This record gives sequence, structure tokens and C-alpha cells, in this order.
Amino acid sequence: MKKYLSLSVPERTAIYNELKNEYESYLERGLSLDLSRGKPNGVQLDTSLGLMSVDLSGDYLSEDGFDCRNYGVLDGLPEMKRFFADAYGIRAEDIIVGGNSSLQLMHNVLTTAMLHGVATSNAPWCREQGLKWICITPGYDRHFRITEQLGFELLDAPMKNGQPDMDLIEELALDPKVKGVWCIPKYSNPSGITYNEDTVRRLVSMKCGAPDFLVMWDNAYGIHDFTEDADSLPDIFKLAEEYGTLDRVFYFSSTSKVTFPGGGVAFMAANPAQRSHFLRYLGAQTIGFDKLNQLRHLRFFGNAENLHKHMLTLGARVKRKFDIALAELSCIEGLGIASWTVPKGGYFITLNVLPGTAKRVYELMCGAGVTLTPVGATHPYGVDPTDSTIRLAPTYPTDDELELAMKILAIAVRLSAIENLNA
Amino acid sequence: MKKYLSLSVPERTAIYNELKNEYESYLERGLSLDLSRGKPNGVQLDTSLGLMSVDLSGDYLSEDGFDCRNYGVLDGLPEMKRFFADAYGIRAEDIIVGGNSSLQLMHNVLTTAMLHGVATSNAPWCREQGLKWICITPGYDRHFRITEQLGFELLDAPMKNGQPDMDLIEELALDPKVKGVWCIPKYSNPSGITYNEDTVRRLVSMKCGAPDFLVMWDNAYGIHDFTEDADSLPDIFKLAEEYGTLDRVFYFSSTSKVTFPGGGVAFMAANPAQRSHFLRYLGAQTIGFDKLNQLRHLRFFGNAENLHKHMLTLGARVKRKFDIALAELSCIEGLGIASWTVPKGGYFITLNVLPGTAKRVYELMCGAGVTLTPVGATHPYGVDPTDSTIRLAPTYPTDDELELAMKILAIAVRLSAIENLNA
Repeated sequence: MKKYLSLSVPERTAIYNELKNEYESYLERGLSLDLSRGKPNGVQLDTSLGLMSVDLSGDYLSEDGFDCRNYGVLDGLPEMKRFFADAYGIRAEDIIVGGNSSLQLMHNVLTTAMLHGVATSNAPWCREQGLKWICITPGYDRHFRITEQLGFELLDAPMKNGQPDMDLIEELALDPKVKGVWCIPKYSNPSGITYNEDTVRRLVSMKCGAPDFLVMWDNAYGIHDFTEDADSLPDIFKLAEEYGTLDRVFYFSSTSKVTFPGGGVAFMAANPAQRSHFLRYLGAQTIGFDKLNQLRHLRFFGNAENLHKHMLTLGARVKRKFDIALAELSCIEGLGIASWTVPKGGYFITLNVLPGTAKRVYELMCGAGVTLTPVGATHPYGVDPTDSTIRLAPTYPTDDELELAMKILAIAVRLSAIENLNA
Repeated sequence: MKKYLSLSVPERTAIYNELKNEYESYLERGLSLDLSRGKPNGVQLDTSLGLMSVDLSGDYLSEDGFDCRNYGVLDGLPEMKRFFADAYGIRAEDIIVGGNSSLQLMHNVLTTAMLHGVATSNAPWCREQGLKWICITPGYDRHFRITEQLGFELLDAPMKNGQPDMDLIEELALDPKVKGVWCIPKYSNPSGITYNEDTVRRLVSMKCGAPDFLVMWDNAYGIHDFTEDADSLPDIFKLAEEYGTLDRVFYFSSTSKVTFPGGGVAFMAANPAQRSHFLRYLGAQTIGFDKLNQLRHLRFFGNAENLHKHMLTLGARVKRKFDIALAELSCIEGLGIASWTVPKGGYFITLNVLPGTAKRVYELMCGAGVTLTPVGATHPYGVDPTDSTIRLAPTYPTDDELELAMKILAIAVRLSAIENLNA
């Protein structure tokens, strides 16, 4: 296919008119499709159906004989820690098991930092003025919202060549007002990329102006490979240990997209100093999280090997959606108007369209009854400076809905591109 | 029985020596008993055994068809709100359903107030200096710890004639630095008393120096009656509405001591202004709490009427412990050395011993291998100014353990009293 840029205006206009007709034919159908939500669909959730049948009434004791129905065990059952440690390749003793939401743990860590500092702080963060936070983009809107709401100035650090731009991040981190960076290191939301060793190494070895700079390591998709041919994420704790910067790393994940977003188990991990500092404040909040749900998950999976099998079943179900989405994008390949990621796991595809056209694509999709993630949601303050990033969440719709939505998307991308090139 | 005070020193010494022998006979037994913990025991927990067998795999939809396995529904399932509303006599629309811990909701409300204020605030609380908080005593150490950790000066407001001392509280509340008061209004921890209408009316009608003064209404034992002959708690929302002070009231409870402390469902309630202010910040923390556990509870109980029956079964099991404890206290009745509450529900008995002897009682009990709640835990900063308050938590031990522990306690109280009177 010829690149649109090398076509003459009349050639492009001819294509435009044809596509416009096609687009308009969809308008009459009164569609209502949704590609906006990073939610599993029913088929994916059914992978964990057995979890809801686990009957604990015959045995509600932890391995060390603790009655899990009762109060206590603030930082989680030892066997649950070991289970997560095995699954994610981290140390059980670094883990704190939480409630159903890793986002809430992240919020909790930063709220505690605001009011009491972290182990490496000289003072509570709320006593400092003009705090800033690094946001690698495209990124996750809920991360950005936490730091925005806590009053941080959000610094946009766009990815470069499919990795975080470490030159820029290293420069930003020198500012003592910069307190940390949000990271989704594997199958990143929404780019689908995985941090390579150079990136991780530089994140833990870089010089930071703030003594209490934090790498918020949201490994949400850490075990979400589609197949055995998976990305490999370098071990951040091992690398940080090498540089003596373990204090910097707060690690998070959950079973939200392993079992159920509405009833999973979240965890965090940090080195002993940060962990015990945080637990002092966590201990004033709660007597303990839901241990019965921890037990339920342990009984359902049995061990990390079964979890791995489970993730491959689930991965196949999610990959099916990605394959459908990517197949539909093939008709805009080679036109020089869009590029996209082809992740080996996770939940999202990033579609990069011509600068200045993403909002127009969104508008055209809305017009045809297809909801996309609002353009800008992937960037601080909801503004994508180049207006070119579209987050695709293919998991939730049915196959047919997805195929249809992607067909319309491929049209909308071409229409917007031609409008832009002809303008 | 003759009051100890009216006995001569030699008479008291004779009694003392006899009791001392009895006490020493227990020392040889190497006991290890625990009256310190407000925890249900296995028999009480078994009342909810069926909850752990609820199989949701056949139907995981909410009444309006929402797949509870998935993300969403920040403030709780509508049917869960209605269930709590029916059970506690409050309005469903005021309710936010949380995770497994009401303490965490309380902490969350106050942390949000620190960082962002409440709906009635002029500024985040963390920008103000010298904030204070009213602690009705004896009270709950975990309440006091939250406000202590957040930097409040804790003001001790001792109960008077079995009710909060409203003259004192009204006076304290006039100070604009005083931001609120902790209340456990029914079967209070640890006194077991229930606030009467005059108390509740004055709490919502009193003049407050701070525009954003909060009544933190922890109705933890709101449905924890032993029998149908129960205390009746005035409706704080109704009274607050009368005085136009609904903004002041944050209501909390949970099923921790209804089903399982390690896997229950908590909720809070507040008027629309406070509720929507809080939800703005809650929405940045989490996409939603565990809806499957909400569903599990709903399926187990069916309706508020079954819950009521369940609470009477549970109440009978708890009352049995109270009866054992109170029976053993009868041998120190009329001696003028101790008084205690006889609650109609809840989890605790407060034993008031002679001023200056509570720590000595605790010490004697430790010596005999019986753990009590540390003296002072019922007061701000862990200090009971009159050294006279002992919190008894009779639910956790077995009947035999409890009887034995209470026998030793009755001896320890008498020994300490005589030591004090003879000194």
C-alpha cells in the first residue's frame, strides 16, 4: 500500500469519499460498542469460576493453625505471601498482603508519605511545597489522578523508542522536589511494552535529588503472558540491591486480572525499612485485611504452578481479543498514518495516529456509537500534547463487537489522517 | 457483706492473708488465660459457618444484573445498602459500603479530612496547627490511636453517671481547634452503656467552634443485643436533622462481630454533602470494594429479619460468657471496692476498682498467668488518670477458662483494695 503522504490531494480525496460512505453506513446501525474499559469479559472471568465455589466451612485455618475467620494477621497469611513470592519472583518477607485493590495500597503508601513521610524522609511530605511527580506517558490515568489529587505537579515523560526516556527521567529526578515516578513495567498500560534491563537499571541507579524518591512499581500485568513466548521483566529488587537503593522501590500487584477485579487479593512489597515504617501506620488503620479471601485463593490455586497454567488459559482468552483487534488494524498498515504496539501480554494496545488527529478519531468513533478511552486519559491532566495516542482495550467486548468496532476504527483513523493531510 | 472500708486494719489483714494463700495456690498452676481481647471465640464464629459455604458460581449478579466479579460499583451494591439500612434503621442512600474494616473507613475519613478537609471545611486540616480531639473515656484504644497518630491533642472526657459528660463535651467543643469526638453509642467499648436521648440530642445540637466538627459515630455494637430486652439507641440522623447538623455525623459499623472479623463487610453513612465529598477522594483510591463478599453476605442472610434471628443466636452465645463473668464478680459485691457495668449487649464489661489499684490488679493477674487489657488502654495516651478502669473482654476464652480467670480477678481486686486501704 502506498503511504498517504505520497498521494496527491485528489487521490486522497477519492479515498476519503469512499471511506466516508462506508463510515456513514455504520451510522445508520445505531451501534453501542465499548473499547474503553480495561475490564475482563465474562469468558475471561469464567476461568476463575471455581474460586466462587470454594467452601471454607470445613477448614478455615491457616497453615500455622490460625482461625482465619477472626481478627489479626495485619500483613497477610504467610502462605499467601509465599504464593505471591513464587508467582512474581520476589521475596516472601518483603510482602504485605492487602485487600482487593492494589491501587488502594498505592494510594495508602502515598497518603502515608504525605502525612508521615516514608522511612527515608526527613519530614512528612505535606510540609513541603511544590512537590512534583514523574509520569511516564502514555500511562495509567488512575495513577496520575492519585498524585494530582495529592497536590503534586505532574511531569510528563513521554516514552522514546518503546522504552521510558531515561535521559529525561534522570534529569527530572535530580530536582529535590521530584518525589517519584509511576511505572507499569510489564505489558505497560497502555503501551503493552516491557521495561528492559537498561531501563530498570537506570531507574534504581540514577541520582535522585530527593532522599525519599520512590519508584512506584505497579506490576499489574507481571504474570499476564498470553503464551510461553513472553516478555521477561528484569528483577528490580535484585538490581536495586546492587546499587544500594532498595529503599526506593515499592512493588504492587493483585489478582484483579488473575481471578476477579471485584473480589481479588492485592499485595505490595518493599524492603524491611520501608515495610516496617508503613506497617506502623497501616496498623492504626485496620486489624487486618480479609484473610478468608486469601485462604479462598490459596485453596483454589493450590500452588504457583497451577496459577501459571491458569494464566495461560486466561492468556489464550485475552490473546484472542488482541488477535481480532490487530487483524483489523492490518488494513491501515503501511499507510504511514498510524503505528501500534503488538504486546505479548497485558490488557492494552496503544494506537499512535497522526499528531493532531486522535481527538478527531475519538469524535468519529463516538458518532458511530463506539466508545474509546477519552483521548488524553493516558497523559497528566488528561491532555495528550501531541493529540496522537489512543488506548485500545480489547478485552471486554464480544468477538463480533470487537471486530466491528475495530473496522470502524480503521476507517476513522484513515478519515482523520486524510482530513489532516489535506488541511 | 461488710464494706472493706468499715473493717479494722487487723480484720482486713486477716482477709488479705487468706486471699493471698488462695492467690498463691493459683500461681503453682502455671496458667495462661486471656481476658484482653475483644474477639469472638470459635463457638460464636460458628454461628456464621454457612457463610463460608455460599457458592456464588451459579449466580454472581447483583439484583440489577451487574456482574459482581468485575470492576465497579464504588459505593456498594444497592441491595447491600438496603440490607444495612434495614438492620440499623438508617437511610440506604446515605450508605457507602466498604471493605472488611470499619476502622479503615474511619481512618480514611480522617485522613481525607487531613489532606482535603471535609465538606464543611475551609481548608485541609493538615494546614491548621494544634488540632484537638475529644475522647470519651473509658473508650476504644484504636480510636484514640488514629487521632493521636494524625497529630491531634487528645482531650480526656470521662463519663459521668453512666453517660458521656455533656457539660464537659459542650465546653470542649467550643474551642475551634477541637475537630470532633469519638463515640461508641451502643454497648460502648468498654463500658457497655448506651447513649440516651439527652446525650445524643446534645451531641448534635451543641455549639461547635469548628465549622467542620465531626461526631464519629462508631455503632459497632448497634445490633449486638443479647436478647429482645435490649437497649434502644436514639436515631442520631433524625435528631441531627432536627437541628440542621447532619453535616456533623459520620456513622460506621460492620459485620465484623456479626459474621467474621477476618472477612466481613463494613459500611459508613453520612449526609449527601459529606458523602459526595468523601466519594470524590475514595474514587481515586479504588475502583470498588469486594462486591463478591457483599453478595455472599446477602445470600447468607437473605434479609434483615434473618439477621435479627442470627444476632439473637449469637447474642445468647455471648451472653453466656457475660453471665459467667458477672457471676464470679458477685463475691466482691457490696464490699465497696469495685463496681461494674451489666450490659445488655456488646462485647465488654468495665470493672471500676478503687482509684490507684487498677495497675496492681493487672500486675497480680499477670503474675497468675491471666492477661488483661493493659490498664490505660481505655484512655488517651494509654494513661488512666485515676488508675481505676479495667476492661473485661469475656468472649474469647472457653467457659472454664473464663470462670477460672474471673475467680482469680475477684481475688486480685480484693488484695489490691486491702493493700490500698491499709497503706
